Amino acid sequence: MNLSPAAELAIRGIRLLAEKGADRPIPLDVICKEDNLSKQYLVKIFAMLAKANLIRPIRGKHGGYLLGRPAKDIRLLEIIEAVEGPLVLNYCLHDPPQCEEADCPGRTLWAELQEIMKEKLASVKLADMCRPSARVKAR
Amino acid sequence: MNLSPAAELAIRGIRLLAEKGADRPIPLDVICKEDNLSKQYLVKIFAMLAKANLIRPIRGKHGGYLLGRPAKDIRLLEIIEAVEGPLVLNYCLHDPPQCEEADCPGRTLWAELQEIMKEKLASVKLADMCRPSARVKAR
Repeated sequence: MNLSPAAELAIRGIRLLAEKGADRPIPLDVICKEDNLSKQYLVKIFAMLAKANLIRPIRGKHGGYLLGRPAKDIRLLEIIEAVEGPLVLNYCLHDPPQCEEADCPGRTLWAELQEIMKEKLASVKLADMCRPSARVKAR
Repeated sequence: MNLSPAAELAIRGIRLLAEKGADRPIPLDVICKEDNLSKQYLVKIFAMLAKANLIRPIRGKHGGYLLGRPAKDIRLLEIIEAVEGPLVLNYCLHDPPQCEEADCPGRTLWAELQEIMKEKLASVKLADMCRPSARVKAR
């Protein structure tokens, strides 16, 4: 049980964008260079984050990406779900159900675990994950 | 972020074994038929569970599998780690560290999340996941 490589990259990429903290769009190349990230992969991940309105692509010569809203208002859960889809810890919790055993104690336990995990991931904000030394983008 | 297919199958397989509740070994065929599980895959998963002493293979004509200890003493975390290895939620928490940014707030947050998840998974026992109607194996 661990974070998908896509979600891992999404978090690293958007965190670097937040840390750049400028009011001007940050080109993808700058973000990739900062942490040796694959541009080919990150461009796809950023398209997913943009679709979820977590970041905003700006076209043109001085284009790049801006955060969609302040880093203190972007939840870690939103970043993960933007690339992985709704968080579903295991088979028991698929919606619609894929198992007919409605009274299974396993399902109740997994639902409880999932709720704890979602609450925690929703409580963490992008701003919390940025280095204190970085000038985190306020808007 | 979700359970690996291997861990999913391990949980389903060992739960069925626990629910069989007999004092005699249960053949793999019986377990597979119960829930339409792939025998080819489950035999590999059961080898991993046996290596972790969670189940015990019994050879011979009337052979099969027994639980390694009572279902009330087998933790969900042990089952997952027997097939996935130590639970590591994300890149930040690899041991030895694969990232040099020791003061990163992200790492602290992920470590906290991982601790919550491990505690919860360790508190759930195999017996808790079995249907009340099943005669869960006491030993």
